[in-house]
Amino acid sequence: MKRIKSHRCFGGEQSFWEHSSTSTQTVMKFSTFQPAGVARGALIWLSGLTCTDENFPTKAGAQRALAEAGLMVICPDTSPRGLQLPGEHESWDFGAGAGFYVNAKTQAYRDHYRMEDYINLEIYGILEREFGLSGRISLFGHSMGGHGALTLGLKYPERYRSLSAFAPITHPVACPWGQKAFAGYLGSDRELWDLHDACRLVQKGKRHPKPILIDQGTEDSFLKEGQLQPDEFRKVCEAGGQELTLRYQQAYDHSYYFIASFIEDHIAFHAKVLAETGRP
Amino acid sequence: MKRIKSHRCFGGEQSFWEHSSTSTQTVMKFSTFQPAGVARGALIWLSGLTCTDENFPTKAGAQRALAEAGLMVICPDTSPRGLQLPGEHESWDFGAGAGFYVNAKTQAYRDHYRMEDYINLEIYGILEREFGLSGRISLFGHSMGGHGALTLGLKYPERYRSLSAFAPITHPVACPWGQKAFAGYLGSDRELWDLHDACRLVQKGKRHPKPILIDQGTEDSFLKEGQLQPDEFRKVCEAGGQELTLRYQQAYDHSYYFIASFIEDHIAFHAKVLAETGRP
Repeated sequence: MKRIKSHRCFGGEQSFWEHSSTSTQTVMKFSTFQPAGVARGALIWLSGLTCTDENFPTKAGAQRALAEAGLMVICPDTSPRGLQLPGEHESWDFGAGAGFYVNAKTQAYRDHYRMEDYINLEIYGILEREFGLSGRISLFGHSMGGHGALTLGLKYPERYRSLSAFAPITHPVACPWGQKAFAGYLGSDRELWDLHDACRLVQKGKRHPKPILIDQGTEDSFLKEGQLQPDEFRKVCEAGGQELTLRYQQAYDHSYYFIASFIEDHIAFHAKVLAETGRP
Repeated sequence: MKRIKSHRCFGGEQSFWEHSSTSTQTVMKFSTFQPAGVARGALIWLSGLTCTDENFPTKAGAQRALAEAGLMVICPDTSPRGLQLPGEHESWDFGAGAGFYVNAKTQAYRDHYRMEDYINLEIYGILEREFGLSGRISLFGHSMGGHGALTLGLKYPERYRSLSAFAPITHPVACPWGQKAFAGYLGSDRELWDLHDACRLVQKGKRHPKPILIDQGTEDSFLKEGQLQPDEFRKVCEAGGQELTLRYQQAYDHSYYFIASFIEDHIAFHAKVLAETGRP
């Protein structure tokens, strides 16, 4: 694990790292913000389509609120890089920059596109081992990364203390982005797809013990296209007894200007839950 | 004046515009953040080398504090674009992205590189005419843009209510960046150069009626290279009776992570002065 560069920011450190990943069998990059002093907990931020480890630290304006809350954040990249797999570089919503936080099963992708393990085991392990934050880790993300946060959080609720998302893809098996990605990474077995769909996971009985927080802009063009389907997620949560706070934010779109406007709320939401686990 | 795109942000609007500039004889782009309701004043942000109208709105995290203060910001581009002048695209510190906020005199540049007029007349006029903010306009910037803020503010103190800067080039006639730019834009007449050098302007008796605020990171590599020279500016201000608050920020560098960490202070500094001019 090698620190590539670092910047003082709000009294803490904004850093960029690379390491050899055992999950993806590639060099992977991630970024961290560490507040001054000992962090009280960590948030894993999962980014959306086309993003890297740099979008969140550059655009979300989160460091101020993280410094005040005494929380660190770690931002993984959204896929392996430096490969030349079949179809990997042909579109912005599949392959590079679009790993969808699943362990691929198809022959072309199964050796490297293991983003579920990468987040759930490696990034999680780095927080435990390198940053000493065992047991005080929460998960949030945007769009494809909101899908990652909801699905990993519902599958492994004992690992992630709290979950939140901005404009998440809540029902990938029933939207164009998800169908394209799951066909390419998982193949034709629709039962396998269901294990990576937040709506289906709740329908199958998966629950997170804490309320989930979702913000969704009303002028988000991908909401209108049916890629996100937050009302579908609300329905299954209501039917299944999963507590959910779904907030529609009037006139906001899908951009980081939307994320920046509400990031402080999400950090406060996670900080409150993480504080319940006690100080280090 | 055409709005290219717009995003709701902290209850206001982050917008990107283009217009035909009479100063540069090109299409110019700028960005604005407008808070909800009627703005109480406007800040002009001048960016540094290589930047466009997009760096500040994307990276500075300023919209939250601007929304709270009820101030708008306008961010011009750093040079004309779309031209093919001799030497214009050969280096990152001269030509495109490096206009240095002067009206060029050399034959190659004098028809288009008129950034002093562009800021001081056209951008200023847009704030007066299109946004109704006459008399409530302040000026700040970063690096080359800090040089622009100090020199334009000292030359036209009646137009700009307050001045601040992050890591400004305070003495361009005596640093490599400034010498290269002024030779290319202004030619060999050193007396002409002095009219665009913040240190020289104070030495020649120019003053701003309000204290000037400067933040400078101690780990800024360009400080160490002698490109910025804030102590030289402090000396001439002390000698000349120009009030100045120069703050060295320990361990901060030249990046937007530094700017973001202290942008709220600068906005509060300008808001206080602009409030003295009365509400609209």
